[in-house]
Amino acid sequence: MSEFITMAHGNGGAAMQKLIQDYFVEAFANPILAQGEDQARIPLTELAKQGETLSFSTDSFVIDPIFFPGGNIGKLAVCGTANDVAVCGAIPKYLSCGFILEEGLPLADLKAIIQSMAETAKAAGIQVVTGDTKVVQKGAVDKIFINTSGIGVIPQNLDWGVHNIQAGDKIIVSGTIGDHGATILNLREKLGIQTDLHSDCAVLYPLIENLREVDGVKAVRDATRGGVNAVLHEFAQAQQLGMNIDEQALPIRQEVRGICELLGLEALNFANEGKLVIVASAEKTPEILTALRRHPLGENAAVIGEVTTDKKVRLVGIFGQSRLLDLPTNEPLPRIC
Amino acid sequence: MSEFITMAHGNGGAAMQKLIQDYFVEAFANPILAQGEDQARIPLTELAKQGETLSFSTDSFVIDPIFFPGGNIGKLAVCGTANDVAVCGAIPKYLSCGFILEEGLPLADLKAIIQSMAETAKAAGIQVVTGDTKVVQKGAVDKIFINTSGIGVIPQNLDWGVHNIQAGDKIIVSGTIGDHGATILNLREKLGIQTDLHSDCAVLYPLIENLREVDGVKAVRDATRGGVNAVLHEFAQAQQLGMNIDEQALPIRQEVRGICELLGLEALNFANEGKLVIVASAEKTPEILTALRRHPLGENAAVIGEVTTDKKVRLVGIFGQSRLLDLPTNEPLPRIC
Repeated sequence: MSEFITMAHGNGGAAMQKLIQDYFVEAFANPILAQGEDQARIPLTELAKQGETLSFSTDSFVIDPIFFPGGNIGKLAVCGTANDVAVCGAIPKYLSCGFILEEGLPLADLKAIIQSMAETAKAAGIQVVTGDTKVVQKGAVDKIFINTSGIGVIPQNLDWGVHNIQAGDKIIVSGTIGDHGATILNLREKLGIQTDLHSDCAVLYPLIENLREVDGVKAVRDATRGGVNAVLHEFAQAQQLGMNIDEQALPIRQEVRGICELLGLEALNFANEGKLVIVASAEKTPEILTALRRHPLGENAAVIGEVTTDKKVRLVGIFGQSRLLDLPTNEPLPRIC
Repeated sequence: MSEFITMAHGNGGAAMQKLIQDYFVEAFANPILAQGEDQARIPLTELAKQGETLSFSTDSFVIDPIFFPGGNIGKLAVCGTANDVAVCGAIPKYLSCGFILEEGLPLADLKAIIQSMAETAKAAGIQVVTGDTKVVQKGAVDKIFINTSGIGVIPQNLDWGVHNIQAGDKIIVSGTIGDHGATILNLREKLGIQTDLHSDCAVLYPLIENLREVDGVKAVRDATRGGVNAVLHEFAQAQQLGMNIDEQALPIRQEVRGICELLGLEALNFANEGKLVIVASAEKTPEILTALRRHPLGENAAVIGEVTTDKKVRLVGIFGQSRLLDLPTNEPLPRIC
């Protein structure tokens, strides 16, 4: 086999079969994938009980660069979709992977990416059960894009969602914000800031499991592209409510704060890949914080504000002055995930 | 809104929300998508009964050109995954869509593609319940790539699969072969052949439904990239068996035959997007042909050969001479789907 992806790796023939067998089937090894059919066949009895609900989500990953401190496009593709599946309270179970590869991609890069996907999935108890590989000529795609779609199961009687949000509820983030965005920005824009900053890219299911054990959780999302700010706006708009965010309460790493100040950007708009935004009833907030902090992924969890009736998302400063937090209209950080 | 996709359409903010609302949510309208959550929530009671099995498949579509006689990349993306889900006998129910858009893509093209996806899905009784949109800068992707993943339900006691294939079984195709590949080749290579040739791109579930009503079906696949030949090799290899194909029995349109002769190519290697390859027990073959021909998509169904013990895929000519049908090692038709 050549050391690079060639068009023959995408032709449905011998080279493609060999690539799939040697790279994908070997790394993702599981009985469903090993059947070698065009579809994964998942017995319902292994997946869910009557009365439960499936969670189904999809995400395409186009991040540039494909390797970065804290992860790579493969790890991101597993975490991103696993989290989208899980934030409704579901246990993520099965993933599909669709690879679009550029002719000339080093096979060593592909191998490292697949290895990372396999390790991340395995650690989270998720099986990659079906996939697809396309190769396009040099220049028709930038190195590698990955789509993952996921299936999970929402336990009975769990109903997290935007419809539960009410004025007076508290807003919690599960940890420091903006780490992923700041890492990619530092790398890509060659800011040259020497830090040990790395992406927070992680499967958040263990945190979500802790949340399922306490009362008072209303709605949960992972704050990715668009940052915490985008989630706040989604929540506010869905319920025609507002959000007051306490600037002093935002957990932000020193390095991320530095990058923000240098560039005049807002950490609230930076992408995260391992952080939850949670809306919770005020009286249950202390228990929810405790549940989050029990896991290393949630050790910096903090209440950052509360839901209001005024339909605006506001950042409230130390002296009580507030300003509107609009959504950015242009694209400050393309290809962040 | 500008007439072209801009980077702002992918930033997780206001422009993206508007694109999703005006283009996707409106076209794919259904109650699950309308919830506006990060994941589709599918009550199991609406999907399947205990004892049934889920079918889960994914495919990325990178076809060039994106519009062609008989369809476009959107219609193809719905048909392709619906068929991969269904060829195990499953009823395709839900799709996810992941769009990767190039900055500068005309919005009118996107709208036409989405419209076509919505119509194709609706006609097949399939709901598009979750999605994702990424925008990359000009040159990082060629116009538009689409991933679809699908979920279907395999009825109880149905077990189609390669493991059933035995020597002596008959091989059936559901109609003329190579139409999609020949259409794209004619278009892309500017062969200038004036024909009414068009892609056979179709959701094959109605044909599969007919097959479920008869006995003797062993294994079914749709012959896409790699053509009927790739499926024959997959079947042969999985069971360490062989296939003898009767050259005279192959249903091939006159126009496709012409293109093959002109270029010295084999219609068996051309992609199809609406054709099944079926392995069936010999004695049930007449009933299976009747069941296929009952539907317009199967009116040209034909027995094209039989399963042998010699581990080779052979094309047998009119005078009984045979030659090996190898898989192509290079890529004659990149980006065919």
